[in-house]
This record gives sequence, structure tokens and C-alpha cells, in this order.
Amino acid sequence: MPDTSPAAPPAPAPAFRPVSAFDVPRYAGPASFMRLPLVDIDAAAAAAVEIGILGVPWDGGTTNRPGARHGPRQLRDLSCMLRPLHPATGDDPYARAAVADLGDVPVNPADLMDTLQRITGFYERVKRRGILPLSAGGDHLMSYPILKALAADGPVGLIHFDAHTDLFHDYFGGFRYTHGTPFRRAIEEGLVDPKRVVQIGIRGTMYDGSDVAWGLAQGVRIIRIEECEARGMDDVMAEARAIAGTAPTYLTFDIDCLDPAFAPGTGTPEIGGLTTREAQRMLRALAGLNLIGADLVEVSPPFDPAGGTAWVGASLMFELLCLLAVSPALRGRAG
Amino acid sequence: MPDTSPAAPPAPAPAFRPVSAFDVPRYAGPASFMRLPLVDIDAAAAAAVEIGILGVPWDGGTTNRPGARHGPRQLRDLSCMLRPLHPATGDDPYARAAVADLGDVPVNPADLMDTLQRITGFYERVKRRGILPLSAGGDHLMSYPILKALAADGPVGLIHFDAHTDLFHDYFGGFRYTHGTPFRRAIEEGLVDPKRVVQIGIRGTMYDGSDVAWGLAQGVRIIRIEECEARGMDDVMAEARAIAGTAPTYLTFDIDCLDPAFAPGTGTPEIGGLTTREAQRMLRALAGLNLIGADLVEVSPPFDPAGGTAWVGASLMFELLCLLAVSPALRGRAG
Amino acid sequence: MPDTSPAAPPAPAPAFRPVSAFDVPRYAGPASFMRLPLVDIDAAAAAAVEIGILGVPWDGGTTNRPGARHGPRQLRDLSCMLRPLHPATGDDPYARAAVADLGDVPVNPADLMDTLQRITGFYERVKRRGILPLSAGGDHLMSYPILKALAADGPVGLIHFDAHTDLFHDYFGGFRYTHGTPFRRAIEEGLVDPKRVVQIGIRGTMYDGSDVAWGLAQGVRIIRIEECEARGMDDVMAEARAIAGTAPTYLTFDIDCLDPAFAPGTGTPEIGGLTTREAQRMLRALAGLNLIGADLVEVSPPFDPAGGTAWVGASLMFELLCLLAVSPALRGRAG
Amino acid sequence: MPDTSPAAPPAPAPAFRPVSAFDVPRYAGPASFMRLPLVDIDAAAAAAVEIGILGVPWDGGTTNRPGARHGPRQLRDLSCMLRPLHPATGDDPYARAAVADLGDVPVNPADLMDTLQRITGFYERVKRRGILPLSAGGDHLMSYPILKALAADGPVGLIHFDAHTDLFHDYFGGFRYTHGTPFRRAIEEGLVDPKRVVQIGIRGTMYDGSDVAWGLAQGVRIIRIEECEARGMDDVMAEARAIAGTAPTYLTFDIDCLDPAFAPGTGTPEIGGLTTREAQRMLRALAGLNLIGADLVEVSPPFDPAGGTAWVGASLMFELLCLLAVSPALRGRAG
Amino acid sequence: MPDTSPAAPPAPAPAFRPVSAFDVPRYAGPASFMRLPLVDIDAAAAAAVEIGILGVPWDGGTTNRPGARHGPRQLRDLSCMLRPLHPATGDDPYARAAVADLGDVPVNPADLMDTLQRITGFYERVKRRGILPLSAGGDHLMSYPILKALAADGPVGLIHFDAHTDLFHDYFGGFRYTHGTPFRRAIEEGLVDPKRVVQIGIRGTMYDGSDVAWGLAQGVRIIRIEECEARGMDDVMAEARAIAGTAPTYLTFDIDCLDPAFAPGTGTPEIGGLTTREAQRMLRALAGLNLIGADLVEVSPPFDPAGGTAWVGASLMFELLCLLAVSPALRGRAG
Amino acid sequence: MPDTSPAAPPAPAPAFRPVSAFDVPRYAGPASFMRLPLVDIDAAAAAAVEIGILGVPWDGGTTNRPGARHGPRQLRDLSCMLRPLHPATGDDPYARAAVADLGDVPVNPADLMDTLQRITGFYERVKRRGILPLSAGGDHLMSYPILKALAADGPVGLIHFDAHTDLFHDYFGGFRYTHGTPFRRAIEEGLVDPKRVVQIGIRGTMYDGSDVAWGLAQGVRIIRIEECEARGMDDVMAEARAIAGTAPTYLTFDIDCLDPAFAPGTGTPEIGGLTTREAQRMLRALAGLNLIGADLVEVSPPFDPAGGTAWVGASLMFELLCLLAVSPALRGRAG
Repeated sequence: MPDTSPAAPPAPAPAFRPVSAFDVPRYAGPASFMRLPLVDIDAAAAAAVEIGILGVPWDGGTTNRPGARHGPRQLRDLSCMLRPLHPATGDDPYARAAVADLGDVPVNPADLMDTLQRITGFYERVKRRGILPLSAGGDHLMSYPILKALAADGPVGLIHFDAHTDLFHDYFGGFRYTHGTPFRRAIEEGLVDPKRVVQIGIRGTMYDGSDVAWGLAQGVRIIRIEECEARGMDDVMAEARAIAGTAPTYLTFDIDCLDPAFAPGTGTPEIGGLTTREAQRMLRALAGLNLIGADLVEVSPPFDPAGGTAWVGASLMFELLCLLAVSPALRGRAG
Repeated sequence: MPDTSPAAPPAPAPAFRPVSAFDVPRYAGPASFMRLPLVDIDAAAAAAVEIGILGVPWDGGTTNRPGARHGPRQLRDLSCMLRPLHPATGDDPYARAAVADLGDVPVNPADLMDTLQRITGFYERVKRRGILPLSAGGDHLMSYPILKALAADGPVGLIHFDAHTDLFHDYFGGFRYTHGTPFRRAIEEGLVDPKRVVQIGIRGTMYDGSDVAWGLAQGVRIIRIEECEARGMDDVMAEARAIAGTAPTYLTFDIDCLDPAFAPGTGTPEIGGLTTREAQRMLRALAGLNLIGADLVEVSPPFDPAGGTAWVGASLMFELLCLLAVSPALRGRAG
Repeated sequence: MPDTSPAAPPAPAPAFRPVSAFDVPRYAGPASFMRLPLVDIDAAAAAAVEIGILGVPWDGGTTNRPGARHGPRQLRDLSCMLRPLHPATGDDPYARAAVADLGDVPVNPADLMDTLQRITGFYERVKRRGILPLSAGGDHLMSYPILKALAADGPVGLIHFDAHTDLFHDYFGGFRYTHGTPFRRAIEEGLVDPKRVVQIGIRGTMYDGSDVAWGLAQGVRIIRIEECEARGMDDVMAEARAIAGTAPTYLTFDIDCLDPAFAPGTGTPEIGGLTTREAQRMLRALAGLNLIGADLVEVSPPFDPAGGTAWVGASLMFELLCLLAVSPALRGRAG
Repeated sequence: MPDTSPAAPPAPAPAFRPVSAFDVPRYAGPASFMRLPLVDIDAAAAAAVEIGILGVPWDGGTTNRPGARHGPRQLRDLSCMLRPLHPATGDDPYARAAVADLGDVPVNPADLMDTLQRITGFYERVKRRGILPLSAGGDHLMSYPILKALAADGPVGLIHFDAHTDLFHDYFGGFRYTHGTPFRRAIEEGLVDPKRVVQIGIRGTMYDGSDVAWGLAQGVRIIRIEECEARGMDDVMAEARAIAGTAPTYLTFDIDCLDPAFAPGTGTPEIGGLTTREAQRMLRALAGLNLIGADLVEVSPPFDPAGGTAWVGASLMFELLCLLAVSPALRGRAG
Repeated sequence: MPDTSPAAPPAPAPAFRPVSAFDVPRYAGPASFMRLPLVDIDAAAAAAVEIGILGVPWDGGTTNRPGARHGPRQLRDLSCMLRPLHPATGDDPYARAAVADLGDVPVNPADLMDTLQRITGFYERVKRRGILPLSAGGDHLMSYPILKALAADGPVGLIHFDAHTDLFHDYFGGFRYTHGTPFRRAIEEGLVDPKRVVQIGIRGTMYDGSDVAWGLAQGVRIIRIEECEARGMDDVMAEARAIAGTAPTYLTFDIDCLDPAFAPGTGTPEIGGLTTREAQRMLRALAGLNLIGADLVEVSPPFDPAGGTAWVGASLMFELLCLLAVSPALRGRAG
Repeated sequence: MPDTSPAAPPAPAPAFRPVSAFDVPRYAGPASFMRLPLVDIDAAAAAAVEIGILGVPWDGGTTNRPGARHGPRQLRDLSCMLRPLHPATGDDPYARAAVADLGDVPVNPADLMDTLQRITGFYERVKRRGILPLSAGGDHLMSYPILKALAADGPVGLIHFDAHTDLFHDYFGGFRYTHGTPFRRAIEEGLVDPKRVVQIGIRGTMYDGSDVAWGLAQGVRIIRIEECEARGMDDVMAEARAIAGTAPTYLTFDIDCLDPAFAPGTGTPEIGGLTTREAQRMLRALAGLNLIGADLVEVSPPFDPAGGTAWVGASLMFELLCLLAVSPALRGRAG
């Protein structure tokens, strides 16, 4: 990630730095994301926050194996094993931006439609504060109410890592809101521009192909895993950057784009997926993109009690944090 | 369970007997409840069924840790370890009644209200067939739509084993349908007669006591675990029988009435609960009760992958099956 | 798998299609292979079946860690997560052939020789029906009695994915029937033509090399993992196709040819194995081969209670099913 | 716990109440003990705190299986499943005292002697604030540096639940500070009055009996599990209360006093232990005792990843909290 | 166990003492039973051994879930947590007898009949040496070939703790050697005197009652769990002692006589079983019995990877060791 | 590993060969490393040993998640699955050198400085015997006291596989001995020559870069994972061999250099690591190097109870054993 930010901003207040494991062991203390301070979105301290990390403890859209509602807590726990500097570049995102844990978004586990509204409402407050959100899921349906808040001013681009397109129309006799439909809804409602959408890592047995057909008809670019392998990850990511362009873009990372050997703790795993080395390389290729937010979803602790998947998820959230820390959208904030 | 059925009925057709583990090992073959034949509720063969075992693969009412939707499949798997005769009495329920696996009730994991209707609709068909249902959950909210079908003709009695009263009014700002509210709804709607309700094994830290206060005001009898221990299980069950009386009664068994040492795989465990020896003794004391149906709920496989809790659940379902097989309601069926 | 079947046959009766997860969630309902109907081999309905999926719940030949007897049930469970179309080609195997779950083959867990006879007897009935069998193990010794039935008319070719050659002569002082000896027996008895045998993925510490020496002397082609890596998977598979030729061929896939990171739930794992991406690519390269049957063996649930290995196994069984659905042997069936 | 506090004090500020699970699901939000606010011991807000819950993430004294250093974090996580009122009495401890999570005590995992000093230093600050500490371990050696701070003014009484006496002199060739020696040190240094010490639940194979012999010689009362069983828990606790008397007393609860069926996640389990029902009954018998602090130690998450033991531990910590909330020592605080 | 040996024999050589955990931590060093020296049965050192602990790593008789072949190794591992003195009496069995680990008995996992002969042959050598064997299973079929060696001179008595009678005639179409038949065979062949057999803890659903009927007809005393509970453990054990009398007796302990909450790691668990406190009390009531050997069987590590069941098993093996150390049969050895 | 030892030495005594799994199943018998005989370092038999395998059951230097103290026992267990010949070359290390299990090194789990001295003392005896040590950890701090013994005559070279540099100066306010500091100490004290040190596989988020900066300043060559990937493993290893040269060299392999998908059971995993196929290839490239000893560290069983990581560890220890068996240092021993 070198050269993306020649003129680093003045360092934020020390309050927004992780607790150091040289001082307090990583397993000690209450767990917050990256051991950062907890800040209430309505508190005065929130005014200084530039990047907010949030949990969305909800899996109401899950049609198969539930558990992603427990993701934010386990991701917080495992994120305490992270150190402050980027592994490959040595970059320090906390020197670039004031980062805080904004807590969990309010949800109602028994009422899906109510929760969609609660989530959108919360992210409207985040957006109003000028904070770039990095969200931890939660199932993938959550990206839809988040986009509803973030893309209120017009459609955004989307870089979408996943094993599945999540472009289905409905399930179970016409029900339109599940974790298999968020981007169908988002495109239909003009939240994302389908011509600026790229889906990477798609694979797994198919229902009927209606998702892919609809997506292609809208202009969505779908890059299956076989194409990734054939072309190489660098080439694929060059195309992805070109598709997203320089306009505001959202990045969503479903942990199931990884192979289940690397991320077993998820509800709908598909074999033959990405390795973590590939995923890191692909994410690092996006440094400098105009990101207005990002999420990492579908970590499901009940299917991985030892926490290996959450550790992968937390490590990739750190990659996402470093991308947000060098996003032009962050700098534009002062404007 | 001796003396409850001096005049056993003629044995049902051999088709309704479990596969024997003397012939096929218990781990072999596709798993159905008790290794019984699978019968479609709408098929002609259903006309011969007297007791139907059903799964309700749904946890949409769960406010805490999900996973009970996976209960029916794991209960089917573990139920294959059961042999045909009752451990203590030697009674053979399959000689008393034609028992079949009726498959799983249709659900919609993303739409709670739709699922409530689907469940009630399905049990109406079961009732119309004159079949006594033994249901495997699923979370405890499911007892409410089941009762809606079974108690269509008037309120029934309820024997309720649980750590919790499930008598709350609402959650999350007024939402009235969760696994903490089914019996509040059932009493409000006249599905169960509160004066014929007994709750056994109640314990665990309390929110505000509003559930207990409301229940007592309606006439519900709540027997906390401390009272069970002080009086002894036999004395408690004598009272429970007296409360239920001879009118039609439903039995609902939440696996969390057991101590988590015996049944860890559940969403809301509470320490200090019943042992399995106590539970068996208590259930056996109900032989001859006028049961119109029973359920065993809240087995959550993701919290017990080794299946110990499902084995406990399946073993207790066999106790419930033996109770249904000597229920006057079964004999009344021919009438 | 493109171009392998330009003239697709008329679609089979709808009865032989999987239950759709758009209608019934994948975790719901009793589990059969691929959610297909269960058909008794002796029932009239079996006459319509073209490809039969069977379980062999047996690990009597296991010299090390047992548990593969539990494989068929867990594979059935996880196979319910599959959708009907092939991930890469979009091909629908259920449109090409009538596929059913034929249940489990009879076994005797305490008597090895008796079980060998039971298995051969059952597959003779399958063969007589003209059904191509896709079998789920069970330990690898089972391939021997299966071949005894399928190759009754003359030796067949063999494509063998495995970490081990399974070509040993005997164990424990002369005992000749274990999961380390099936293909020694099969070659000795003329069930497979050693010059049409290719073993792929062989690795792991060696006893004394006697298996390899004997195999090479018979003309078996052994491709070790190092050779796979050096040449690339496509090149290796081109050779494998050439070795098998166009005559009838059996495909056997031991899950331990995969690296234990991808498939930990097996009795004799060896590090440094294939990834699932490599395995998928290798299997897909076999489309159009004249396959008369296939098996996937050595999935051992007790060593992977979370079911990740069974999910890999079920996903690869789907690849095998797609190969059988385009096998010339299937089309020759009508002849 | 009835009648212990006829005149409840005015309710503390609402800031010191747990988040309600009626509003925020229990799995949501960052985890603090009992979902209470986190308060820095040196912050102004600490002045209002009456009972402080602290973690001691340290297992440096463990001679056998480590992991108790992870106890505080998992106990915080599971404690979020607690509701505010006592299960048996309905008592609300948060209405009696201002309770807060004081975070984790500083430790040095690689330097035992340094950590002993850090712990003592931290509890001196807690004591100076007049806060009654409820501590979550951590291995049992931690009770020694805690007592060093709390008993600075003179020896205290000790109610000690454990499978082991922890009264050994040394290990490994003379090393005097391990989790098998804390109360030997505490008695030697005059921190506890041996004649006011009672040990309950002792069992397990013995080294040489030197611990018991020394303890008895000092006047320690050791009540083995067989005596508990023979006399009944109520009788034993009556004696324990008499031994402790009305002078200041510390309560230490080693989770291994429970049977490993109830609490497997601990480093040195011994079979034949207490049930949770017995433990609850015994603790409740201590209401009104003059407690100056309490701890619950030896919960070791790596030996129980599903968290069942931590749930037991958190539930018992709630019992301890209720004891502290009615302790005369709390009321004396204002004096 | 007081008063059973007023005149303790001279202490054996120090070589036959466990390594002390005061010197070497329990988790350190290669694992032998009770950290005792390993002695080859044919070595000169074996002449001094009085009690030999052996493993029988075999589950060839298992009709259901396998894995007991792994029992001996895990029992050795967990037995390293034992200290030398009896928890309740303070007795030191190593001061009474020279005890050694005799290693594992030879087996053939793929050939049942061969293994039966190997086991009998090995125990004939043990018996010839005058060594009392304490055996760790392995499945319960192993007791049959052991008794074949030990009872060569005439039938012995049998104290049998189990959930199952193991008195069936055959399985799977006439096969007579499984873990459900050992004591049928042993009685038929005159190895045990049925009138001196007592079975304790029997429970679980029944096949057809043929086992019980046959046993009762031979004079076997079967004490079901309900009778144990009704009479109390002391009363039951007084009867058991009377049945066994003073003649040579064998003790066999199937871990599944315990409730699965206490011992989940076994192949055929039955709910409603004994607690470990009850089991310890019952075994201790047998001090002084004329035991010629004992075994503990059916610990199955794959169903309990954390090792809790093996810890229970090892702890009960220590109780059995203490019984053998005060058995008249041991003293008679010098004669 | 071909051609490295054209003139093989006369075969050692048969006593130093592993037990064969053709005779005794791999799960049977007490577990020693590679099923080799256990030899006491002070016994006469030790004079014949050329390569000694030792356990260091200690994790006192662990700053994060403990458990590596349990590594040696689980590595012994899993090493029993190894066969005698090298997978790729067919080489038989036991024909080249007399190899024995030397047991575990004495440690004091509660006193770090005492343990450092004990370890150094033990390896001085190993070195005095002329035995090349292959050590199984234990945490990485152990390499420092081992090097203190082995490099007593002058600095050695170091080939270091790891995710971390372990070159930090201190932790927790100045403490200088943790598993993050061993090679800082070793270089400072002249035990290793920094110009002959190569670190391979380094990755993971960074504290402050002070470790890397110091290492580079001393002349240490640090090859990050990204460089490994870019250059290919063969190229990297050619450089590593050149750096080590022909002078005496030590090889240390931290299991966390592997990706956590392959080796989850370790205390400080970092995503994006080596595969086992890469690790095998890299180690095999070192055949013929002048190795004076090797270790494999940081296997932590509590974080991988199923033992997959220990199986990887044992398999790589076999690779290390084969390297030692062809090391010039072994041949020089006779001199």
C-alpha cells in the first residue's frame, strides 16, 4: 500500500489508538474492535471520529444455517490479537485517521422489517457525522439497509467478494428480503449502479441461474473463481478497479468467498474458494480506491467455536480499515 | 407405566414398526424418527396413522442464541439409537398405536408471521386426520401455532416443563411473538385454560417478574425448581396430574428444564436444573393422562455438535410417545 | 464439462428431482442424498432409476482410526446443501438421468467376510437393474466387493484418487482384507486391468515400498503428489484419460487424497495433499469418460463433528454424479 | 436470601444498571461483566462505585493445564446472559449497590513475582476507594495477592469452596508460589486467621497428605465431599457460617469444587464433586455474612470452548454479587 | 476403605511408584498408566509385578459407534493427572503392591476371531505370572476372552456395572460375538457362575427382553437403575457383596453405567444413569472382596475429544486398583 | 533428498527402529516419538544414540494464548501414525542413524528463570553424549536455552521458519525473556551469528517495526511471505542454503509459519501463511546442510483438540529427522 498518501495528516489524539500488547496482554481486558475506545454515536467524542467500526449482530435474513448474529462479539474478541501496523507496508492506519468502536447497531431478532429500518436509521446518523463505517456482520442482508443510508444521494459502485451473487428475487413463496437478495434490492432501488458492480469469487452449485442472468442483464460484472484462477488475482483486481472507477464505492466482503478450509465458520460454505493469501493480495490491490464504507459479513461463530474464522475475519477487517484510511472519501470529509 | 392399558389393542400393521438394530446397525440407513416409515400427511397411508411424529425446523422466535431450527434433523439422527420397548415397564408403544414420521412442517425462516400461519395450517390437517402429534422443535414459540390448531374447539390443559415461564408480553419495543411469549398469547386467546396450567422446573435470573405476576393472576401454577427439590418429584407430579385433571391436555417439554450438564445444546440454559433421572421419573408419573399432543423443543445442535443433547431429547421423546400411546385421547379417536 | 452431451435426453419424471431450497430450507426435512427420493432396489420404482446413490456404512477394514461407518449419514445430511446445477457448467444432471437414493447397503459390523458378501450381493442387484452406482463410504475396502459385482464380465479400468496405493498384500500376520489391500485383491482377481489403472495424489511416509513395487510390476501408473505439482493438474489428467481409454472404467475417490486442511475428517490423513480447487479441476477433466460407477470413501465424521469434510465429500459426489450423467455407459443402458 | 436487608438503601444512579435484554439482545454489544458500565478505578466515576467486578487474566501459578488467563473475557461474554433479579428471592442487587465493571487487573504473563505485586497494588487502590471487589480469575494463586491488599489491617476469615486445599508448601524443588500454595502463604503471613477458615468440597487423589496435616494443625476446618453428602448441604453451611462468624470474611470459589460434568473447563478437575444445585443452595445460605470481597477462579476456556463452564461461573458470580450486596461490609462503607 | 488391611506388606521397590507431579508436571513425559514404569510381560522385571495394568485397544465387537480402540491411549494420558493416595481413605495402593503398566495386548483390528485368541493367550501369560490384571478397554466383548484365561480353573463370580446386560444371543443374522453378547458366552462356557453374577445400573430402551429373560433364568441378579435409586446405593452394594461371596470374583465396569452427562465419550450411552459420586461410593463398598481382576471398558475418545470421559475412567481405574491392592487374591499370590 | 549420502553407514541395532503398524496398529501401545524406544540420557543405552528426540513441555515464555506445554505429548501421540520411509525419496532415516526418544526435558512451569537453566543443563548432557537433538516444543523461548548449550563453542547459523521474527527486546515493562525475544538474546549473547541467520515466512501485523530494524542492522536476512510467493520456494531456499553455508547450523521451525488453515493449534496464528506442501518442499531443499540440531515449536493442543496440528507437526518433525540423518554433523560425530 505504498505511496497512496504522500502527505499524511497530523496524527489524531492518542485516545484513538489500540491498547498495546506490550503493555496489556492481548487476551486481557474487555474486548472492543482492535482494542479501540468505545464511542457512542451521539456523544460529543463522536465528532472527532473519522472511521467508525460497528457490529450488526443480526442474522434475520439467513435462509440456511443461522449464527452470524454472534459474529460481532467474536470478531471483537479476536481483533484484540491485531497489532497496529500493516503487515506488508508497515502503514499505521491509526496515524492516518481517528478510529473508534461505535458499538453495535440496534436490531430486533424476531422482526426483520423493523430491523431493516433500525439499521438504516443508525447509518444515517453515522453518515451525518461524516464517519466512514467499517461494519462487521451479521448476515449479508445487512448490506442493503446500510446502502440505503449511505447511498441516499445517489447510486454508488460496489466491489463484492462472495461465493454467491445474492441477486435472487425472492424465496419461500415470494419473500423478498433474505441474505440471498440484498443486491437485487439495492440495484432495483438505485442504491448501487449495476454497471459499477463487480462480483468476485462466485462459485457453488446453482439453483436455476436466474440470479446470474438478471445481474448480467443489468450490467453487473461477475468474475467466477475459475476465471480468477485462470487470469491471476492481479489481473482480476485491475479490472475491478477499472469498473469501480473513481466515484464513491462500497466494498462488501462475504467471508464465504474464502475456501471453507480457511473460513469454516459461516452459514453457506462452498468448496474451491479463495485462500487468505489470495484475499489479502486482492484487497491490497484496492489501495487508494474512493471507498465510502466497507463491511465483512457472514462470520458465524457457532460453526467455528475455536474462533479461527473470526481471526481471519478480523485480519481482513484490518485490511479494510487500511483501505478506508487511505480512501479519498476520508480526506474529502474535511471539505 | 404399569396397569395403564390392561386391554391392549390389536397390533398395528408391521409397516409401522422401527427397523431393528439386530438387523441394520443403528448408524445405518437414512434417519427418520425412531426409524419409522415416513408418511406424507396427504397420502392414503396417513389414514392408518394414530400418532404422528413431526419436526418443526424453525427458530424464528429466538431472542438469544439461534440454532433450534436444526433440532429435528439431529433428533431424527439420534432417535435411531432407540430400541422399541420402554426401559422401565417393557411396554411396546408400537404395539399400541400406529406411529409414523410425518416429516417436517413447512416454515419460512425469514418471515415469522407467515410461519405461524403455515404451522397452524399443517396441524389442522394433522388434527383432521385424528392423529395425535408428537412434535420436535424448533424454538418454543412453535407451541403457540400448534395449540391454535389443536385447541380450536376450546381451551386445553397444559403441563409445561421449562426453566422459563414464557409468559412475557413483548420484547424489543412491543414485539409480541418470540419464544418468551407463546403461553401469554395462548392464554390470552383462550387456547389453554390458565387454571389447568402447571409450569415445572422454573428458575434462572429474572427480568422484572412481570411474567410470573401475570401468570399467577390468571391462575397458572408455577412450581420453581427449589420447590421441586424440597417436595420431591413424586409429590410435585401428583399435584400436576390433579391440576391437569381428566380433560384434554397438552404437554410441552423445553429441553432447558434440564440442567445444562445434561442438555448443554440449547439457546438459553439455566444452571441448577433437573437431572435426566428426575425428568424420566416425572414424565412416567403422567401415564394415563388425557394427552392430545406433546412437543419437545429448544434442542439446538450448533451448541452441542456431539449430539448429547439430541440423544437426551430423543430419549425423552420416546417417553412422550409412550404417554401418548396410553392416552385416553388415542382410544377416543375411533369414536 | 461443456460439449459432452450435445443431444440431451428427454427429462426424467419430476419425481427424481431434488427438493428445492427455495421451497424448503436446506436444513429441513429428513435427509436423503441430494434431497432425492428414497427408492428400494426391489421396488417397482427402481426400474426407472438410471443412477443410484448408495451408502456403505461400514469400516470393518480400517486398520487405524475407525468412524467411516458413519460417513453415509453425514454425507446425506450435508448433501442437502447442494443445489441442482453444476457450478461451472450450469449443467443439470437431474435433467440427464433419473437419480435416486437407494438407501444403505446391508452390512455386519462385527463380521468382515460376511459383509464382503453382502455388499457384492447388493451391487449385483444394482447392476442387474442397469443402474450406475455412486457410492458413499465407508472405508476403502468396500471398493473391492463393489468391483466384484460390477466387473463380473471382465476387468475394468480404474481412476484412483488417494494418498495411498491400497496395494498391500496383508496386515497383522497375514490378514488379506483391510482398507490397505482392496486393489491388490482386485488386480489379483482380474477385476481391474492393472494397465488401465492410474493412481493420483499418492504421498505420505512409506512402510517398505512393497505396495509400489508390486503395483509398478503389474503396470499400474502411480502419479505422486510431487509429480502432480510439477506437471500441473491438466497435464496429469490428460494422461489419466489416456490410460483409462474408452473401455468401461470405475472411479474411486478417497477423501484423503485431499490435504487434511480441506478434509480433516478421515482416518489416515497425510499432509501435503490436494486442494479442493485442484480436485474439482481434475474431476471436471474427466467429463465424457466411460464410467460404470464411482465411489467416494473414507469420510469419518467422528474426526470432524462440524461436518466440513462431509460437505467437501458431498460437493465432490456432485461432481461424480455429473460425470456419471454424461458417461457413455449411461446411454448404453437402453441398448 | 429473604429478610437480610429490611431497609433497602436508596437506588443508585441508573448508570449502574445492566443493559436490558428486552432492549438489546444478550449476544449484542461489547461484553462487560453483567452488561454493566466500565469504570476506570482512577476516574471520578469510581467514587460512586460500591461493588466492583474485576478480571484477573493470569494463570502464572498453574502447575498443570493452563488457560485460566482467558477466564475473565469468557466470563464477561457469558455474564451477558444474566438478567437483573435473583432467581429464588427476586432480589435486585443493582438496587442495593452501585456495581460496575472495573476492567482487568494488570498482569505480566511471563513474570510471576512482578504480577503478584501488580495485583496487590491494584487491590490496594480498590480498597482505598472503599469498593468491595468481586474478582474473576485467573488461577487460584491470585487470591493470595488480593488478600495481601484486603487484609492489610489484620487477618480475615475465609470461606473456601474447592476440590483442593491449596495448602501445599512448595513445588518443583522448593518453588513456593503456585496455585497449590496460596492459602499456605496467606496463613503464614497472617492474612487469614486459620481458625476462621473453612474449606468445603475437598476431594481427589492426594500427594502425601502434608497439606491437610498442616491445615488441621493450624486449626483450618476441612469438610470433604463425603462429609457434605452425609450431613447435607444445609448442615454444613450452618457450621461454615459459625466458623466465619461476624468478623470480616473473604469468600473464594474455585470452579473445580463442582463436578466436571457441570464445569469441565478447568485445569485440575476431580470427579465426584458438587452439582450446581448444591452450590447455589450453599451460597444462598451465606446471605448476610460480613463479606469484604469474593472471587471465582479457575475457569479455563481452552478446555471448554462452548462456554458452558463460563456460564456456570457467571451464574455463580451473580450469587456472589447478591451476597456482597447484602453484606454488612457494604453498609459500613459509608461510615 | 478403612480396616481392610491391618498389616500392610513391606513396601515394594521404589521402581514401581508413579512419577510425582511435585517433581515433573503431570502433562510432561511419555504417558503410562498412573505414570508407572512400563514392564514387558516376558521380561525379568515382570516377576516382581503383582498388579498389572493393561490396555486392550480393540473395538471389533462394537455394533454401533466405534472408537473404544482408542481408549487405552487416552486413559494413559489422563491417568497422569492422578496422585498416589486414595481420596477418601488416604490409602496408598503402591505401598501395598508392585504395580506396573504391562503395555497393550496384541490385537488385529480387521479379524475378530483372531483377536479373541490373541487376548486369551496374553492373559494366560499374565495369569501364569501370578499378576492380577486391571484392564482398560476397548469394547466390552474383551471381557469374554479375558475371562477365558482367568477362569480356566473354574467359574468365577462377576460384579458387573453397566447400562446393558450384554446377555444377547446373537446379532445380524446369527453372529454370536459382539459387545452385546460377552456374558452370554461366558455363562454358556462356564467361565462365570450365573448365580454369582450381579448386574448393576441396567437401563435404556429394550429390544425384546430376551437378554433379561435368559439371564434371570440362569440365576443372574439384575438390579436396574430404578431399583438402585429406590433402595440407595449402600443397600444395593451390600446385596452385591453377598451375591459375590468370598470366592474369586471378577469386576467389570462399563463406563456407560454412568450417565452421559458424566461420561459422554462412549458408544452406546443411555440417559438416567449413575453419577460419579454414586459410582465411587459403590466401588468403595467392595473393599476386601476377593477380586482376581477387573476392567473398565467402552471409553471412546472420538466421542469426547476433550478427554473428560477418560478422566472419569482413569479416576475409576484408580478405585479399581485400590480394590485389587486389598484383595485377598493378591495376598494369596505368594502361596 | 537423493544423493546426499552415497555411502550409507552400517545399520544401527534393530532396537532403534519404530514399531511397525503392520504388527501393532498405530493407535495401540504407549506413545513415544515415532514409536521409538525410550532411552534415559544417563543410561548406558544412550551411548549408542546418534539422534535424540526430546520434548520440552513448557510455555512459560508465552505472552498470549498458552498451551504449548502440552505439545510434546500430543506430538508423541500423532507421531505414531508415521511409517519409517520418507514419502518422496524412500530414504530410511533409521537405517542411517540410531534414533531414540530421550523423554521430556525437566521444567518448572511456575519459574521461568529456573526453567531456562534446567533446559540448558539438559542439552549440555545431550551434547556431551554427541547426540544431535530434535526437539518438540513448547513455546519458542525454548530455542534460546537450547542454543546456549549447543553453541557453547561459538556462534552457529540459524534457519528460522516463522511468522514472527522473535527479535523483540522486551515486553511488559522491560521483561526480557518471552517467546518474542529468544533470537534477540541469542544474537546478543553470541550464540548465533546474525550474518548466518535467515528468517522465512515472516508476516502478520506489526507492533512498531523495532524487531525488524534491529535484525536488519545486525545482518539478519528476513524473507517475508510476500517475497516467498513472488520468487518461488526453490529460489528462496537456495538463498537460505547460501546464507547458512557449510558451518554448523541450527534449524528452528515455528508451526505458525504455516497458515492457520493447516495448523490452527498454535498460540499466535497469522493468516496468509505457508501451505504444508510448500513447507515440505522447502525443508527437503535443505538436505545435506550441516545441521547440529533442530526443533519444532508452538504446537498448542488446547487450540486444536482433534490433533490436526500435531499431525502436521509430527510429519514435519519426520522431515527434520531425515535432514539430521544426512547432516555432516552426524558423520563428524565418530571423529
